[in-house]
Amino acid sequence: MRTRPIVWVIGVGFAVAMAMLVALAQDAPADPLQQTAQALFQPLPEVMLDPDRAFSDELVELGKMLYYDPRLSLSGFVSCNSCHNLATYGVDNLPTSLGHRWAVGPRNSPTVLNAALHAAQFWDGRAADVEEQAQGPVLNPIEMAMPHEDYTIERLASMPGYVDAFAAAYPDHAEALTYVNMADAIGAFERTLTTPDRFDDFLNGDGAALSELEREGLQVFIDYGCAGCHGGAAIGGTVFARFGMVEAYWEATREFVTIDSPTMPMDVGKFAVTQRQEDLYVFKAPSLRNITRTYPYFHDGSVWDLRAANEIMARVQLGRQMSESELDALMAWYATLEGEIPAHALQLPVLPASSMETPRPSNR
Amino acid sequence: MRTRPIVWVIGVGFAVAMAMLVALAQDAPADPLQQTAQALFQPLPEVMLDPDRAFSDELVELGKMLYYDPRLSLSGFVSCNSCHNLATYGVDNLPTSLGHRWAVGPRNSPTVLNAALHAAQFWDGRAADVEEQAQGPVLNPIEMAMPHEDYTIERLASMPGYVDAFAAAYPDHAEALTYVNMADAIGAFERTLTTPDRFDDFLNGDGAALSELEREGLQVFIDYGCAGCHGGAAIGGTVFARFGMVEAYWEATREFVTIDSPTMPMDVGKFAVTQRQEDLYVFKAPSLRNITRTYPYFHDGSVWDLRAANEIMARVQLGRQMSESELDALMAWYATLEGEIPAHALQLPVLPASSMETPRPSNR
Repeated sequence: MRTRPIVWVIGVGFAVAMAMLVALAQDAPADPLQQTAQALFQPLPEVMLDPDRAFSDELVELGKMLYYDPRLSLSGFVSCNSCHNLATYGVDNLPTSLGHRWAVGPRNSPTVLNAALHAAQFWDGRAADVEEQAQGPVLNPIEMAMPHEDYTIERLASMPGYVDAFAAAYPDHAEALTYVNMADAIGAFERTLTTPDRFDDFLNGDGAALSELEREGLQVFIDYGCAGCHGGAAIGGTVFARFGMVEAYWEATREFVTIDSPTMPMDVGKFAVTQRQEDLYVFKAPSLRNITRTYPYFHDGSVWDLRAANEIMARVQLGRQMSESELDALMAWYATLEGEIPAHALQLPVLPASSMETPRPSNR
Repeated sequence: MRTRPIVWVIGVGFAVAMAMLVALAQDAPADPLQQTAQALFQPLPEVMLDPDRAFSDELVELGKMLYYDPRLSLSGFVSCNSCHNLATYGVDNLPTSLGHRWAVGPRNSPTVLNAALHAAQFWDGRAADVEEQAQGPVLNPIEMAMPHEDYTIERLASMPGYVDAFAAAYPDHAEALTYVNMADAIGAFERTLTTPDRFDDFLNGDGAALSELEREGLQVFIDYGCAGCHGGAAIGGTVFARFGMVEAYWEATREFVTIDSPTMPMDVGKFAVTQRQEDLYVFKAPSLRNITRTYPYFHDGSVWDLRAANEIMARVQLGRQMSESELDALMAWYATLEGEIPAHALQLPVLPASSMETPRPSNR
């Protein structure tokens, strides 16, 4: 069947119109919202690594094995992925996590996604980076409960697959299989966990990446000053601030709490680390990347509803009340922050076999 | 540089020699061990499905999501994969599994790999197939602890992602999202979990797939009559037999037990289901596919050493003692049963988001 002339005319006309639109867009006046956003936020990098460092595929692969391996816990039941499940955006979606012997942790597990961009790790910033952070849970009696570093290394060193993997990951180290390297490898894996999203497209120059409502939400976020604490590439993670500037947060969150949190309202935040009065109730402002998937919210996981969490933040931090339409717009913009989890991170590794020398798991 | 004539002569000579060898191999007299093996065992199928059934990619994908989703448990912490971890060959490598509130289960978690080939599921065969099996742990108070079927479905139905996935998996069902379909989908996923290995190559006609020692091990296995219970495609899983024909198994295993099993020696096996005297201490003879990776062994997971487990089996089932060289050979053959886990099964799904209607997890 031959193409009719009228189809050609429509086709050519459409192409010309599109070309004109593209030309118009290129000549379009600067988008002030986009420019402001580009000043407050940065697009996610592909890998979260200082330019003077480098890591090999072998190191990242080792880190991934360790991340998924429940034998890093005394019971052989709890892995990093148990509480930072990559199938659910690097969190467990629980108010606070469960650990060894079903212990209920004091704080909500933050997502590992984009976490290497944070200024410091944990809600109170007590670890400098993801490598240092990864040393913590393995030995924490209510998390993975390994008795000490040596025992952890004894387990790993009993498995030929890990001996080889550490040697390949740390070819220049006289002693490759160490506790510090174990955490370092987990950190290296975590540095690959960035989740580019639609807002990155916008920051990278595609003004059409956000809808009108999503742009409105971004504008609300900026106008309320939220970016003061939730800025940068991770949209958060770099500022420590008192939770409850205007009003005590536990008063504001009380009505939302559906599951008792063991530490509410006693969690004093960074004060517990520094004992300085100015650190009372100070927590790290979390990253808002993938915020639609990292419920429940706050350091105690007390609030499941993102909309309610926003109302609370406006109230206790700013003494303001957001309108319904402002909240509608904000929710729309938040949805653009739901990114793509890297495929390699979701490919479960087949873990090395234990040997007869491997210290046995204990659930006691 | 031109190729020297002598290189050509060597090359052609080598090619002729290879062709003669291939011709010889084709004319080689039948391999009696291979023929006996082909009579006792079958190669693993690609998918474990009755010829009159079929399933779609959507069904398998839904099953995989459910398999990895900890929200199938009351706590939101335990998934099918917690105890049947595909990163560790479909088991948890624990004597008996941990479940809700750190409950210690009574029996060792069998691997899901190749499990659909079994004549029946569970150690006592109380479920007919993998679909029926998958209905059990979700509601078991010491496993995933969901209070009842309706509650389970309420959770799933609260997530738009699951509503869509069930509709796509069961397009002909008036009601797609049901408890039976949930288990059916998990079963469909499990029917794809076959792990072809080097022994399959041997069964499929490649006589050179096994080394001399591995052939010896296979011969020992056959000569001792092990294939009577551990035969077929899964090399086990089809026969129920009294564990301890000649001697009580708990007497023989006592010295190997390193972690107390809560039910030893009280586990009466299939008797608990049927109350028939002939079912006392009767268990399903497990599949030996991937046996090198599914430690610890037996229904109570009391023995970690595969070699010791074999000595015990020879002693309590046959009243015989294996020689060291026989055990050496057997161990070599067992290693050929370590197969490849299908790549699609190891690709973690990104799970559907919960909604504000999703019933909350409870760790109580």
